[in-house]
Amino acid sequence: MPPTLGDIADFLGASSWSGPRETRIAGMAPLADATAEHLAFLSNPKYAPQLETTQAAAVLVANDVPGDSPRWIRVPNPYLAMALVLRRFFAAKPRPDGISPLASIAPSARIGNNVAIGPFVTIANDVAIGDDVTIYQGASIEAGSTIGAGTTIYANVSIYDRTIIGKRCILHSGVVIGADGYGFAPYEGRHEKIPQVGIVRIEDDVEIGAGSTIDRAALGETVIGEGTKIDNLVQVGHNVKVGKHCLLVAQVGIAGSTELGDHVVVAGQSGFAGHLKIGNRVQVAAKSAVFDDVPEGTKVMGAPAIPFREFARRELALKKLMRKR
Amino acid sequence: MPPTLGDIADFLGASSWSGPRETRIAGMAPLADATAEHLAFLSNPKYAPQLETTQAAAVLVANDVPGDSPRWIRVPNPYLAMALVLRRFFAAKPRPDGISPLASIAPSARIGNNVAIGPFVTIANDVAIGDDVTIYQGASIEAGSTIGAGTTIYANVSIYDRTIIGKRCILHSGVVIGADGYGFAPYEGRHEKIPQVGIVRIEDDVEIGAGSTIDRAALGETVIGEGTKIDNLVQVGHNVKVGKHCLLVAQVGIAGSTELGDHVVVAGQSGFAGHLKIGNRVQVAAKSAVFDDVPEGTKVMGAPAIPFREFARRELALKKLMRKR
Amino acid sequence: MPPTLGDIADFLGASSWSGPRETRIAGMAPLADATAEHLAFLSNPKYAPQLETTQAAAVLVANDVPGDSPRWIRVPNPYLAMALVLRRFFAAKPRPDGISPLASIAPSARIGNNVAIGPFVTIANDVAIGDDVTIYQGASIEAGSTIGAGTTIYANVSIYDRTIIGKRCILHSGVVIGADGYGFAPYEGRHEKIPQVGIVRIEDDVEIGAGSTIDRAALGETVIGEGTKIDNLVQVGHNVKVGKHCLLVAQVGIAGSTELGDHVVVAGQSGFAGHLKIGNRVQVAAKSAVFDDVPEGTKVMGAPAIPFREFARRELALKKLMRKR
Repeated sequence: MPPTLGDIADFLGASSWSGPRETRIAGMAPLADATAEHLAFLSNPKYAPQLETTQAAAVLVANDVPGDSPRWIRVPNPYLAMALVLRRFFAAKPRPDGISPLASIAPSARIGNNVAIGPFVTIANDVAIGDDVTIYQGASIEAGSTIGAGTTIYANVSIYDRTIIGKRCILHSGVVIGADGYGFAPYEGRHEKIPQVGIVRIEDDVEIGAGSTIDRAALGETVIGEGTKIDNLVQVGHNVKVGKHCLLVAQVGIAGSTELGDHVVVAGQSGFAGHLKIGNRVQVAAKSAVFDDVPEGTKVMGAPAIPFREFARRELALKKLMRKR
Repeated sequence: MPPTLGDIADFLGASSWSGPRETRIAGMAPLADATAEHLAFLSNPKYAPQLETTQAAAVLVANDVPGDSPRWIRVPNPYLAMALVLRRFFAAKPRPDGISPLASIAPSARIGNNVAIGPFVTIANDVAIGDDVTIYQGASIEAGSTIGAGTTIYANVSIYDRTIIGKRCILHSGVVIGADGYGFAPYEGRHEKIPQVGIVRIEDDVEIGAGSTIDRAALGETVIGEGTKIDNLVQVGHNVKVGKHCLLVAQVGIAGSTELGDHVVVAGQSGFAGHLKIGNRVQVAAKSAVFDDVPEGTKVMGAPAIPFREFARRELALKKLMRKR
Repeated sequence: MPPTLGDIADFLGASSWSGPRETRIAGMAPLADATAEHLAFLSNPKYAPQLETTQAAAVLVANDVPGDSPRWIRVPNPYLAMALVLRRFFAAKPRPDGISPLASIAPSARIGNNVAIGPFVTIANDVAIGDDVTIYQGASIEAGSTIGAGTTIYANVSIYDRTIIGKRCILHSGVVIGADGYGFAPYEGRHEKIPQVGIVRIEDDVEIGAGSTIDRAALGETVIGEGTKIDNLVQVGHNVKVGKHCLLVAQVGIAGSTELGDHVVVAGQSGFAGHLKIGNRVQVAAKSAVFDDVPEGTKVMGAPAIPFREFARRELALKKLMRKR
């Protein structure tokens, strides 16, 4: 049974709201698309005019938006409220039904309570799976790995041996964790492989997008810090350390042994050379190439990447140069 | 039994051709590599001198090429004729033999006629598979998805729940459709996940290359339009709309909510910021970064991307500047 | 039982070493991290001061480093020695235990001696697997492919039909070999698929990183030369020829029919247009876009890529230009 607006208002603690509590809500929608069975939200002020025209049953509106309507449910942060309402009422995913008899699970593996494992999953020797873990079909978890409680591993993920994955992580399909780092010693015109005997450690609340790859360390650990969110098709090289609560947007690449601080934001298709130190709260614009250390709090852009202000001055100089001729 | 030149000439409607009809043809080859059992073709005029030297049994030649030879089979469009001949006579792929007893198929799934499903495929609840669909080993199709008639899904593809895939589509190995979009609400220094409750809809005759990822919408749909062809390792973000008959070359990335018109061509490794409008027939050169809307029919290049002509002027100005010093 | 320092010194032929032969070694570690059960190494001179402070049981040190210590094991090339010691003593991977009864192996496949095949592997008709091959769970090997002796194929790799893979190759998880090249003939506003009927041939001692994709040729072969090492998420288009002992770093892309010579080094996120000739020993800096042929031995950088020296002059000219205003 779908929730009522009253259920939702109560969940959000919107005690002053006095709209139609019994209206059933089928889901959330943007203001422009919502119908009478949807809850909408106003987050970006540029859409405020749609408050008049929306067909939504109700709208999540920030406390400081002027005006009033019985349809408005006042909340401190409508974007966050939308996330919480979706999570609570509308985000249920189909989940494998218990532990499939078609999975291959080593007798030495330890499996927690309330674990769901789909068909054709391989769980190798000495793997430890925490409580409330979900592993979809075709995923492979190699020997000695540990999966923290509440983590979700989607179909066809590949986790190499001895990987450590924290609690409440989400790994999307096609993710590869713990493949060999790219390390070779030149010798007589050939590239001799340096065995990669380190591991990958992923802390709690990390999400990793489809097709991304995190290489194991040569020696020691590759680390993804707590709360960091990685988009699709991102490459993280061996011995990289990514700090806490970073954002790595799609198709970013980080070469070996580079270290990112906390709260670093890297826009899509940017790359880092190896062995760099990138400070806390650094921001890197899209398609940049970072070849040098970047101090805390700096915003950089370009290939090679330079500070935002310098990049803007450079673009301006180029435009003037062209006008002169 | 391989076809004869007569079979091929008849198939192409080359009624005036009077060469050796009984010669058996093992396959097609470029002019320079062809042997006496191959059919060759002349598409790019720069290879015309090879018409003299090729060992091919016969050559597909455009109607307007001067000269004559009993080996030449005249056609209006040799490149297209090559495609048609390959498809008709030489492109048979090995296909799983019926429905493998080693697949896991939910009782509630509906499976059409003449469907081939390899081993270790998972088809979850309420999936609908059209006629003449081929699904290779290890693919995963999550609950509630629909696969149109004549579509081919290669090994180890992952399709999340409620995805809609059209007719005659081709999804190559490693493709991931419907993973969560990259959406987070900042809250007290952490990134709160915004559940991604929309879907992906892929229209008819779309091909998607190996390892590419198409994210599901936050709310609503991510759409790939009819006849669009996507190369390998391409990333399409949540709520993106790609028009009809577009070409997205390898390693392109499109950030969330950007909309591409029809017949847009994007060369390799280019990227688009989010929330942009890209007009019909826009062309983007390789490794460009598009940060702004692009009007219909425009060709852009560079990072940030600017019109072709402006880019050329800029390169010229830089060269002059260097010569001056 | 872990090796002793004596075992290791003997293996390296360090006959003059007179340290504590009986000390057991658990593994290797960098100088700064090593404990009394580790062997360390000095390769980069910048870490020489750590020779004083390291806790390592012993250190691999080049013959020409001044000073002496009973802990130093002298070798000609410490980096190579590290690789060899790791490979000999510390690099054992968990391996599937023989041929899993949960694999699907066609009766017509030929399987060599000492082959390990994990669960949910599919080996189709007429595949030939050499001796000492390891294939992890969920990998798919389509009809008519050949896997050379000593090759390792990790979980969830997808190999299309008729692929030829050499000896001692390593294919990491998520790799896709032999998917269709990106070839279409424009016809009445649509893109008609050109069937891709060629193959991929990978020579001996090639390593391919996680998620990389190598497309089959339209006609003929796509070739990866002997000893070439490919990092993660690299795209190699149809009919590309990569020479011997090349390095392709992560997220590189090579468009169709381009040919790379031997010993070419391409840094991360760089791309090549199609139909180019790239000479032996060319080096391409990170995030470059190569649009033209590059002669033997040249180093190029930028987008479009130009010789290193020219790129440096250009950057300098831009800096001066900005200072002038």
